[in-house]
Amino acid sequence: MPKVVDIHTHMYPPEYIRLLKSRSAIPLVRSFPGAPDPRLVLLSAEVPLLEKHEEDQQNQKDENLPLPGRPLTRHFSSLDQKLHFMDTHGIDISVVSLANPWLDFLPGSEAGDIAQSINNEFSEMCARHPGRLYFFAALPLTSPLPTIQSAITHASSLPHCRGIILGTSGLGAGLDDPSLLPILTLLASSNLPIFLHPHYGLPNSVYGPRAAQGEYGHVLPLALGFPVETTIALARMFLAGVFEQVPDLKIILAHSGGTLPFLAGRIESCILHDGYLVSSEGGRVNRTERRTLWDVLRTQIYLDAVVYSAVGLRAAVEAAGGADRLMFGTDHPFFPPVGGEAGDEDGEWESVGLNVEAVKGGLDGDDEKVAGVMGENAVRVLRLEGE
Amino acid sequence: MPKVVDIHTHMYPPEYIRLLKSRSAIPLVRSFPGAPDPRLVLLSAEVPLLEKHEEDQQNQKDENLPLPGRPLTRHFSSLDQKLHFMDTHGIDISVVSLANPWLDFLPGSEAGDIAQSINNEFSEMCARHPGRLYFFAALPLTSPLPTIQSAITHASSLPHCRGIILGTSGLGAGLDDPSLLPILTLLASSNLPIFLHPHYGLPNSVYGPRAAQGEYGHVLPLALGFPVETTIALARMFLAGVFEQVPDLKIILAHSGGTLPFLAGRIESCILHDGYLVSSEGGRVNRTERRTLWDVLRTQIYLDAVVYSAVGLRAAVEAAGGADRLMFGTDHPFFPPVGGEAGDEDGEWESVGLNVEAVKGGLDGDDEKVAGVMGENAVRVLRLEGE
Repeated sequence: MPKVVDIHTHMYPPEYIRLLKSRSAIPLVRSFPGAPDPRLVLLSAEVPLLEKHEEDQQNQKDENLPLPGRPLTRHFSSLDQKLHFMDTHGIDISVVSLANPWLDFLPGSEAGDIAQSINNEFSEMCARHPGRLYFFAALPLTSPLPTIQSAITHASSLPHCRGIILGTSGLGAGLDDPSLLPILTLLASSNLPIFLHPHYGLPNSVYGPRAAQGEYGHVLPLALGFPVETTIALARMFLAGVFEQVPDLKIILAHSGGTLPFLAGRIESCILHDGYLVSSEGGRVNRTERRTLWDVLRTQIYLDAVVYSAVGLRAAVEAAGGADRLMFGTDHPFFPPVGGEAGDEDGEWESVGLNVEAVKGGLDGDDEKVAGVMGENAVRVLRLEGE
Repeated sequence: MPKVVDIHTHMYPPEYIRLLKSRSAIPLVRSFPGAPDPRLVLLSAEVPLLEKHEEDQQNQKDENLPLPGRPLTRHFSSLDQKLHFMDTHGIDISVVSLANPWLDFLPGSEAGDIAQSINNEFSEMCARHPGRLYFFAALPLTSPLPTIQSAITHASSLPHCRGIILGTSGLGAGLDDPSLLPILTLLASSNLPIFLHPHYGLPNSVYGPRAAQGEYGHVLPLALGFPVETTIALARMFLAGVFEQVPDLKIILAHSGGTLPFLAGRIESCILHDGYLVSSEGGRVNRTERRTLWDVLRTQIYLDAVVYSAVGLRAAVEAAGGADRLMFGTDHPFFPPVGGEAGDEDGEWESVGLNVEAVKGGLDGDDEKVAGVMGENAVRVLRLEGE
């Protein structure tokens, strides 16, 4: 039987939850009167609502506002729950990663130790369930360069580590920051692919006043802000020449590349028509000899299959140059069923079903390709066999 | 012979260029020493570079910075040039529209008169070339509601007007602003589809410091900011229930929907998993009876075919529910060839060729569908026959 592998699945280990509970700025965990679970508030788009609740509390008002963030259930931190989720959905292997915003908000002086402790915690979880769990390590990106380099060396010494999870802020100036090149080079030479994942989204202003009032729930920052963030980050790396400078770098893009498969053609055209980049007197880019984004997509990039539609999956496969570069994921523990007729979170998750259907529909039921995307590609690319 | 129709093609009539030359804030036209053409500076992403040039000029410094904006050639304002472009590319009919940012920046007291004069100017251009030219009118959105309503009545009285071009700011608060509903309702009852076009992009901060230095030319705001703006605008309208409130409204989305075809699945999933919108205790949205984004795409939305890749075109066709909802466009006079081996702007434009190839490739050479997207759909949808 071909293995089913989930490469996009997160956890907050208990130590991390304690950290969030101690905080007064996002990311944080906070309890609200009347709400059964504490709320996990991660996104800047959720801050206006959080602040309104704080105001109401101070003024002893009750506007019956929606709650900020999402319920912090045991799905976020319990390994048993992760295994239950895997069993419920027929997932043989999970490659677990710390959920956003990882260690990005920690003081540099603390991040190194916390990274080591959290990566060890993931490593021990994996060791307890041989053959079922691997992980992507987190890096202490706010720490000085040598600390980050040590963390990479440490991660690559851990037997179940198969890459690192990275946000888009890098050392603070984005992933096209030249200061990041030594890190990217070390990751490439350590054979640790990057799982590139969004967190920061877009400035709230783009969603307008009704979104700021909470009217649209989390839809806009999650559905649009996240994938656009990933797309911009990758485009900046591409324009900066990172893929030429680190030719062995491998990146797995969350959410099927954000929206890169759809926009790659427009990015390419905008480059070819940019009188500054490509000029008849010779610009920064050589029209005919330059490496295209399509080429980078087909040699240095993998995509997860977390795209929720056959339309999107098909575009992702075509942009990636083949179904062998896509890998199934669930985004657990995010997007649980909302209850009622949608079911409860101990049963089957509709969000998972949507992605399984997208894979099957997008590949027109081609069994071999489906088996590849559902797991065999991950087994091959991330070396998940041999235990 | 099936007609070839270009539904995405812009002009700045001479009156508009004069207006831009008189301005000191964007949008503006400005001359720079040594540059053969004046520069047209439209985007907020171009302002940092514009300001650096102003500083250098004050300090009599020459940092050899790239020029802001783009050359203002005769392609922007000359009708002869438009017709030459059409002839060169085998385009039978063009549905011309004022280019961004339209009349969005005008004082409300002036916008009504200028709209009338510009729409009349377009109307006269069309009348001079029967059967070859139609237009989308511009609205004075900064004016009071009655002025906007008069402009719609005026536009629909002009025999070559086939819709209106609209940016994403609406009356200032976006297209999910309830105050816009009377306008949208009047457009629907006047049988004037909206050609929804981006201009404002995303806040510059998202592109990072290297883009602000001009290193990546215009690539990021044009390739990513524009399509994302369109996507957010449409998603906000959808979440606000505009398509239920104005069920006869028809919208043509620029750039094949921005990136809506790829992200529609994720938007749908994010709605279904939003505990505020869809709750087991009954939220704002009824899980099973709600209208989906797919349904709106397939009944109230058309897409142009300005997507520059077969991958994108195929996704657009699938999301739209069929090739009969896509219509070819060029985006002329933007994206001219850069010269040298790319050719000059009086010849064939590569940007046009890329979109023709995308249509043919994305439709696997199906002649009937290709003829539909290349023109017959526009003839049908926009009633371009009978002269």
